[in-house]
Parts: sequence; C-alpha cells; structure tokens
Amino acid sequence: MSENSTGVERIGDRARVVANLLSALGSEVKDAALLASADALTGAEDAILSANRADVDAARDGGMRGALLERLTLTGPRVSRMADGLRAIAALPDPVGEIIESWKRPNGLDLRKVRVPLGVIAVIYEARPNVTSDVAGLCLKSGNAAILRGSAAALRTNTVVTTALRTAFGGAGVPADALQLVPDTSRAGARALMKLRGRIDLLVPRGGPALIDDIIENATVPYVIDGDGNCHVYVDAAADLGMASRIVLNAKLSNPSVCNAAEKLLLDEAIATEFLPAVAADLARAGVELRGDVRARQLVPDMIAATDADWDTEYLDLVIGVRVVAGVEAAIDHIRAHGSGHTEAIVTEDVAAADRFVSACPAAVVMVNASTRFTDGGEFGFGGEIGNSTQRLHARGPMGLRELTTYRIEVRGDGQVRE
Amino acid sequence: MSENSTGVERIGDRARVVANLLSALGSEVKDAALLASADALTGAEDAILSANRADVDAARDGGMRGALLERLTLTGPRVSRMADGLRAIAALPDPVGEIIESWKRPNGLDLRKVRVPLGVIAVIYEARPNVTSDVAGLCLKSGNAAILRGSAAALRTNTVVTTALRTAFGGAGVPADALQLVPDTSRAGARALMKLRGRIDLLVPRGGPALIDDIIENATVPYVIDGDGNCHVYVDAAADLGMASRIVLNAKLSNPSVCNAAEKLLLDEAIATEFLPAVAADLARAGVELRGDVRARQLVPDMIAATDADWDTEYLDLVIGVRVVAGVEAAIDHIRAHGSGHTEAIVTEDVAAADRFVSACPAAVVMVNASTRFTDGGEFGFGGEIGNSTQRLHARGPMGLRELTTYRIEVRGDGQVRE
Repeated sequence: MSENSTGVERIGDRARVVANLLSALGSEVKDAALLASADALTGAEDAILSANRADVDAARDGGMRGALLERLTLTGPRVSRMADGLRAIAALPDPVGEIIESWKRPNGLDLRKVRVPLGVIAVIYEARPNVTSDVAGLCLKSGNAAILRGSAAALRTNTVVTTALRTAFGGAGVPADALQLVPDTSRAGARALMKLRGRIDLLVPRGGPALIDDIIENATVPYVIDGDGNCHVYVDAAADLGMASRIVLNAKLSNPSVCNAAEKLLLDEAIATEFLPAVAADLARAGVELRGDVRARQLVPDMIAATDADWDTEYLDLVIGVRVVAGVEAAIDHIRAHGSGHTEAIVTEDVAAADRFVSACPAAVVMVNASTRFTDGGEFGFGGEIGNSTQRLHARGPMGLRELTTYRIEVRGDGQVRE
Repeated sequence: MSENSTGVERIGDRARVVANLLSALGSEVKDAALLASADALTGAEDAILSANRADVDAARDGGMRGALLERLTLTGPRVSRMADGLRAIAALPDPVGEIIESWKRPNGLDLRKVRVPLGVIAVIYEARPNVTSDVAGLCLKSGNAAILRGSAAALRTNTVVTTALRTAFGGAGVPADALQLVPDTSRAGARALMKLRGRIDLLVPRGGPALIDDIIENATVPYVIDGDGNCHVYVDAAADLGMASRIVLNAKLSNPSVCNAAEKLLLDEAIATEFLPAVAADLARAGVELRGDVRARQLVPDMIAATDADWDTEYLDLVIGVRVVAGVEAAIDHIRAHGSGHTEAIVTEDVAAADRFVSACPAAVVMVNASTRFTDGGEFGFGGEIGNSTQRLHARGPMGLRELTTYRIEVRGDGQVRE
C-alpha cells in the first residue's frame, strides 16, 4: 500500500505542476495536439489492436463474457472512431477564458467571472479503452491535467493508447504529463488515488455500486458521482400510443447495458389495457423479461411478479419492471421513491401533465416525448462526456467540457478600500 | 451516538420531505415569508436579547473573550440588522426557474437548463447568531430546506431566533420545517450530520481547521469547504504607493479576525526601500506585529524574524508576514506555494503585471488595486453569503443565492428515438 500510494502521489505531484502550464495554453496549441493525437491513434492502430487482443484473450480466459467483453474489444473501425472523437473535441469551442458574467458595483469595482480549468482531473473507469481517449481529449481541451486509472483488464490497451497520445502531446508542445495512466490497477491504488487531497481537484468514479460506496466512504478529494440509472418511462393517459411504443422499445432495447436505458415502465391505468399487451409482446419477442406489479400481471398474466427490490434495481440487462399507476401524480410518487436521479421520461400530448412531471421528478434530465437514451454528452452536443452526474452539486447529467471548468472572480478597482 | 444520530436522521427526513414543497413555492410566497420573518425578529427582540445575555454570560464564565465574545453578542441594532438582512434577501431576484441556457439539436430535440434548488442545505457554524438568520433567509429564497447546526455557545440565542423565524414561515404558508435547528451541539451530532447521505445535498462547514479535517475525513454528504484565508497583498514595482498604503492598511486593519483580511505583504524589491519603512510604522502604530524575511528586516530592523511556518499561517489577528520579492513572478511563486485559494491582491499601474498576476494566482478571487476585504457576498452584490468557497468544485468565493442552486436539463421532443 505504501509503495502504491507513493507511486500515485508522484503522479499527482506531476499533474499538479503540469496543471499550471495547461491552464495558460492557447486554443491553437491544444487543438493541434488533439489533431496530432487523432493521427497518432490511427498510426498506432496495429500496436493498439495487438495489445487489445492480448487483453481480450486474458479477459476471456479469466471468464469475462458478453457485453463486458464486447466493450473491451477494439477493432480498426473502433480505433478510427476514437480518433474521430478527438478531432470532434478539437472542433469544439474552448471553454477556458469565457467571461461568464461581468458587473459593476456602486463603488466602482469591476467584477467578472472568468471560466478556468478545474486543474487536475482523475477518472476511475472500467474496461472500455475508448474512454481513455475520450477523457484525454476532454481534459486537454478544457485545460486540465488528466490522471486515468482504468481497469486491470484493459491495461495493455490503455498503456499503448496513452503512450501514443502522450507522444503526440509532446510533439505538439503540450507536456506529456498532461495525461498520465496509473499503472497500479489494484484496489489499494484506487484507494490511494481517492486520498490525494490537494493534488486532485475532481475525481470521477465511473463504475458500479462497490466503487461508489468506496469513494463515498473513503475519498478525501472532491468528486462527482457518476451513478446508477434506474430510468423510468411513464406513459400518460394522454400519450400518443404509437409514439409511446417506439420510445419504450428504443429506451429498453437500443443498448440495454448502459445507464440511460429504461429499467422501468410506468403506465397510466387509463391506457394500460389498450397499451400494455402489445408492447409487452414486442418486448418479450426481443428477449426482454418483464416483471410486473399485480395490475400489470392482470393484463399480461405470463409476466413474472416484481418484488419490492425490483423497483430499486438497475438491471443493465434485458429485463424491465412494469407498474400500472393512477396517473401522473402516482408516477411522480413512484419515481421520487425509487428513481436514481439520472433520467426520467414522460410520453404525453398533455402539456400540463408534461410540465408537472418535468418540475416534480428529482432527476438530472427529464425527457418529454423522447427516449431516455438521449442522455449523453454527444447527443446533447457537448462533444462527448467524462461521466454522467447523478448528484446535485457542481454538475448534473452529462459532463462535457464546460463541466470540467470552474471560474475565477476578477475584481478591478482604482484603490477602493472597505468601509 | 446512536441517539444523536437518530435525532439528526429525523431532522434530515423532515428536511427531505419539505424540500419537495419548497422547490415549487412561488417567489411571492417566499418573499412574504422573508418579510414576515424580518418583522418577527424585530418583534422578538426582547426574547432574543434575553437569551443572548444568558449565552454571553455562560460563554464569558467559560472563558470566552475578545473577538469571539464580541461576535456572539447581540444588541438592539444588531437584531435590526439581522431583520434588514432578511428584507434585503426578499428584494433580490429569485434564482429558481431561471433558464440558464437553451438550445436545439439537429434531430429537433429542444433542450434547456433550468435553475432549481439544491434541495437540503446544512450549515455547521460558530457562535455568530447573525449567521442563523442569514442562512435561513438565503436558503428559503433559493427554495432549499435548511438544517442549522450552530455552536453550543449560541444555542439559547439560536433557539429563540429560529423559533421566531419558523413561526413567521408557518404564518406565511411556508412549512416551518424549511428551517430546522439541530439541538445536539456535540461533536457526535456534527458527525451524524455529515453522514446523512441521501438527505443532505450540500453541507457548508464554517469553522476552523479541525472541523474542516473532520469533514474531509468523515463526511459522506456533498460539501463545499469554507476554508482559510491566507490572503496576500503584493505591491508591485509600478504601484501607486499612496494607494498601496491605503489598501494594505485597510486589508490588515479593518477587521483582522475575518478570512478576507490580509495576512501577508509581498513587496517588489524595486519599491521596498521607499515603501516598507513608512507602511511598517503605520501598521506598528495600529498595534500590528510584523514578521519579516531577511530583506524586509534589513529595511525595518525591529521587525520579528518570520519562520517558515509563518508563510502558511492565517493569523486572524493583528499580525502580518512581510517578504521582499524580485517582482511579480516571484510573488506568484510565493502565492502558489503558500496561498489558501481565498483572495490575492496586486497593487500596480502596470496592466500587463496585473493581468499576469490575475491569471496565474490560484485563488477564487483576485483583486487589482482593491482591498482583499471586498471578498464578501454582500460587497459583491449577492445579498449575503452562506460561506466562502476555497475549493474549485461547484462554486468559488462568496456563495450567494445562485450558488445554492443546481440545474435540471429539460428535453422536449415529438417522439425522437436514438439511432
């Protein structure tokens, strides 16, 4: 542990030093480094794919299967998409230096809030190598030093990717230590990272409940929780049922393993009889297991009975909980009791019902007549995301470039003193 | 401990329930409650002063003296100022519901970020009864439920003040539990409060290093550190020395016991010989103890020698550290090594030096040709402050109404699905 923590501390010290330089870099330098990094990824494609094959083989031998193995696996087109992601970030406006607000006081003081980088950003994440380049690009563009602590299962891939990016940074006049990979993928290494107070300005944990609990109990650095998505779709009495069906199927099926997938379907009792049997059949045909409350099972008797635990569970799988409720207020009550604050959706043509749902649901993102799957930095126009905040402090929902900044208050006077 | 924590948990549960109601309250209702609260304070003046006398007597018997005792003590005019503070908050614009930003995506989705309350805000603070009404007013106006955990030394006063405010809230249609005082002023009670995850959305610890360390090590709720102010005034080679003298004296003397007072004076070597002897004499005449580095002591030999520890110390007293430096870059290096991120000031007529200082100092607030004492929610036009953030996440500097809010992302479509 002390060896781990010393290694992580040195990484933190280097990041702290580099952060001062990065905050003063011009947009042209950062964008040139991003474009060079994109080319470097393409140039290193063979080495990246070879390292990735070794990671994938070892993971498969270790028992990894299904969606997890799929997310770990890179291909030529996937490496190209990682490079394109860096080019897309280069094309976004630089958030640093933006004057967020300016005002003058009666005593003549001129005040302005100016957007500045957070400083040093650390991300702990699972075995998804594309996150490595996404985070590297977002941190550089926003003027922050990045410390990446990926999963052991992706270490070979991440090492080759970060080496390519660091070399490209260096060639473009950006210190290579703007991007550092933590080689220690042990739990003790993660623990050391979350205790680097004074060196890390934001830690984003992307992972399951065990990591989140570890952070909440042990972190001394500031963090933003990238938490569960127990997302609901509520189909209101005034819904266009054709639209509702398309939204429910998309929200559940287009990528069941991600946090913005729908996990629960709430139905107004007024349309349940007409709507549920058909949508349940469509879901079942697509391989989805339905778990219903008593009233849902009266309408679709072969549905499994939902338990109390179901209402609080993020399945991340082809499973959905179904409940019939007595209108929008009952839907809101259910979501207040069981939602995770990620994304909630209502399907309705009734503007008053939509407005009530939007203002009463305690979620970062509320959708009206759209799929929950749109909660995503790219879909929102943020050019990617470093995570998706389910807490209320600092940022909510997808965290893009702007959410990786803070501000400084500049006050200019001509000799003012107080009192 | 378990009894304490159970009591605090019940307070948290009530706050959570009330927060839903508060977030939907109209500005008129909140403002009427604030005005009624102001009147209630004035009406309860005798009871407040009587409770305060008991607190002050007990504190004096317990050995409290000086600035601390002074801050605990209320008078008729001070109660009037607390009431006026509530009226000033009522007159400010309501931050809740503000559309921070809106945009449309190519697929037709309409997005908007709408400002909403944080939810439940808890403040741990020292024996300053005026903080009780300030925090109550700022939290109500921003639509948040407030949990106040004041000092044991002010418990009688705080109890009478919060009872008056809660009664006024109730009479104006605001749930009394919008404001709750934690009666348990033990350390275990504070510990229980900082572990109320899920019930508290923001904890603001206003207190000394021991409290801050306790929060960093033990809090599981989101917090913003209201930290030390080891504030520097740097007098540049190009300073107007008359202005510099006025700013130094004001920054050190106008209220030495607060976090925005100057604790260190850095002097460009080019003006040190001309400037230091006179300002040192002025400071000494006002009772300030000067602690200088070698070069400062060459110019003012009767100065005490500063130790390494001095450069990191927030005195909160009539003491100042003095160092002669080789220009703006050396001043920045010193501040990067020793500043606490609160407020730094430069006095100069050289715009380039000012801009360099502003962009390179790692502080929430940077002053050019103005006293550090202006870092204050009231002086900035925020209508008061709930604390002064020295961290980078969420908010920096004085935290007023807007800093007590977050946002919700509302997405409106007409049936959009992904891919």
